[in-house]
Amino acid sequence: MPPDEPINPKTRRRRPPATGGENFSFTLSARQGRARAGLFKTPHGDLLTPVFAPVGTQATVKAITPAQLQALDASLILANTYHLYLRPGDELVAEMGGLHQFMGWSGPILTDSGGFQVFSLSDTRKVDEDGVTFKSHIDGSLHRFTPEKSISIQENLGADIIMAFDECAPPCEREYNQRAMERTHTWARRCIEQKTRPDQALFGIVQGGVFPDLREQSAAFISSLGFPGHAIGGLSVGETKSEMHAMLEVVDRVLPEDKPRYLMGVGSPEDLVNGVLRGIDIFDCVLPTRLARHNAAITRSGRLNMMNLVFAHDPLPLDEGCACYTCQHFSRAYLRHLVVAHEMLAATLLSIHNIHTLLQLVRQIRLAILENRFDRFAAEFLAHHANTEESE
Amino acid sequence: MPPDEPINPKTRRRRPPATGGENFSFTLSARQGRARAGLFKTPHGDLLTPVFAPVGTQATVKAITPAQLQALDASLILANTYHLYLRPGDELVAEMGGLHQFMGWSGPILTDSGGFQVFSLSDTRKVDEDGVTFKSHIDGSLHRFTPEKSISIQENLGADIIMAFDECAPPCEREYNQRAMERTHTWARRCIEQKTRPDQALFGIVQGGVFPDLREQSAAFISSLGFPGHAIGGLSVGETKSEMHAMLEVVDRVLPEDKPRYLMGVGSPEDLVNGVLRGIDIFDCVLPTRLARHNAAITRSGRLNMMNLVFAHDPLPLDEGCACYTCQHFSRAYLRHLVVAHEMLAATLLSIHNIHTLLQLVRQIRLAILENRFDRFAAEFLAHHANTEESE
Repeated sequence: MPPDEPINPKTRRRRPPATGGENFSFTLSARQGRARAGLFKTPHGDLLTPVFAPVGTQATVKAITPAQLQALDASLILANTYHLYLRPGDELVAEMGGLHQFMGWSGPILTDSGGFQVFSLSDTRKVDEDGVTFKSHIDGSLHRFTPEKSISIQENLGADIIMAFDECAPPCEREYNQRAMERTHTWARRCIEQKTRPDQALFGIVQGGVFPDLREQSAAFISSLGFPGHAIGGLSVGETKSEMHAMLEVVDRVLPEDKPRYLMGVGSPEDLVNGVLRGIDIFDCVLPTRLARHNAAITRSGRLNMMNLVFAHDPLPLDEGCACYTCQHFSRAYLRHLVVAHEMLAATLLSIHNIHTLLQLVRQIRLAILENRFDRFAAEFLAHHANTEESE
Repeated sequence: MPPDEPINPKTRRRRPPATGGENFSFTLSARQGRARAGLFKTPHGDLLTPVFAPVGTQATVKAITPAQLQALDASLILANTYHLYLRPGDELVAEMGGLHQFMGWSGPILTDSGGFQVFSLSDTRKVDEDGVTFKSHIDGSLHRFTPEKSISIQENLGADIIMAFDECAPPCEREYNQRAMERTHTWARRCIEQKTRPDQALFGIVQGGVFPDLREQSAAFISSLGFPGHAIGGLSVGETKSEMHAMLEVVDRVLPEDKPRYLMGVGSPEDLVNGVLRGIDIFDCVLPTRLARHNAAITRSGRLNMMNLVFAHDPLPLDEGCACYTCQHFSRAYLRHLVVAHEMLAATLLSIHNIHTLLQLVRQIRLAILENRFDRFAAEFLAHHANTEESE
């Protein structure tokens, strides 16, 4: 397959495109402004949107069990193609019955394409029109991803939602973004061409950095390819919040309304509200679990650093009124003790609380949309919610 | 209080002794040979004996939540007085409502006296007749434990079962053991004198190293003091298995039958069977959780090191026929992946399996005693169970 010549899907396509056919369907239950409440059916269960996916990079959401995730009523989780390809290897995962069986998660799973991780290895990767050559962060060994390889790995992993292989450029370099966007478009067609499994939905990815015309062009091109869902990549990677919001607004006007939109790698509480306000249905982010491993709790009064001496004698739960297991059973004093004593349970209990907080927020958002009061909910939330991105 | 003059409990005692009164009762349901199946009632619930207590040194059984412990049907857990005194401090725990509330465990708790840990700090402690001065392993600060201090800390912590402050000597030095035993006896009386809470049962500790006459003497003296339960200390600290068994047999002949016997710090599967065969009712050990953090699983075919390459493609559970959450949901291949990828979930899932294995074993032992077939059970177990203390 000549790498520099875009494939014409009309002549090359020998099988149904990326829609996933009857295994998937997306219906909107309600709208308010640009915000949407929907139902996305997948082979491993229904997703009520907006939905937030905790991240299980290496086939585990760090520090918690699938049973704990289920008790949190998590519906979708994300796993990383780059990591699982390197370790334990996608072929091993396939041999063990696929990712659902391997990691003991029977609900829907989404895998990324590996593109974002590979392009983050800025010193050790080399991109060409056909793909990317990179060195493993584990042992320095040399590997190569192409669109075809990414799809083939993701078919081995067997997630319900898989992603087209894209190039993620630094958000503010226009020329680089133009080239990366064009490459992403070519690669999107090659991913569609490569895909074979009808039980996976392949999403296309919109790129274009912080440039409205590129984003518009990318959204138009990607949505012309017939994907069953669309992702917005290359955001939350260094640009400002207002640049991100502007890009979401541009893309929202172009993407078809009847397919789910996924904002990749985004998920502070404020980002979730701002994303839904701009038409986003699906989010994922390492924030709740990463903060937990750094001893921090996401609360309505902002971020709490549980190492802080002020919590030593504090009998209150992390967040009063929170219904999670952690807040129902443990004081801030106990959590601080666990943190200070380097106990693993700290990361577990903080992860449970942080994931619950984000899942609960998207459930509240969905209800507010269904009850036609999301505009007020969002305004109030953004006015009063302490900034989670700064530690107290 | 003169440190070198044993207190006469007849003249000094101003309150009921260490029995714990009506808050505790111990009844034997069945016996076979020396083995006993009993019921020990405590203020936080009933213990079906023989019972195995997982260890929660710093007010957490490492890597698992109280809810997971509850799902494992654990009934008793142990916490360490030395560690909790240093961090977060027993007064803080008392201020937070005591250990049960602090750590979110509503079942029975046992605390040790701190003696064993302090005497393990061989380079940084100094013992005299009144107590022990030692340096904190955390910051090197100087502290002092006396029998009175140990009881006062344990009253602040608020466990259901608390321990007399004892001196644990190297098991094979006769003179040292003689002195340590005498000191332990004097201190036992001082502990009884100090104790005030009726909702705690204070157990006396038998010392005497590997010397039958000392053990006999110690068991006779300690059981003359009216404790509601008796512990056997200073074993599983370097002596041989047959020395340990001989000491258990000596002590078993002397201790009253109508009170529970607790073998401190012991708990490999073989040790549990051998202990019950020699009249023991209560065990505790870090083995299941410590092995888990060192990537090892306790199975009927011996110890499995999950780092081992042989498990890379192994779709079987850790132990076929095991009903624990880990074995019901995850393959050896997945567990090996978690270990190799340094994921915290490895320690959690291995801890769940290892604790389940020991709890299940004591449940089987109890049933075998009730059904009058423990002799065969034990013979078969000891003939066929692979040695857990060696890694494959």
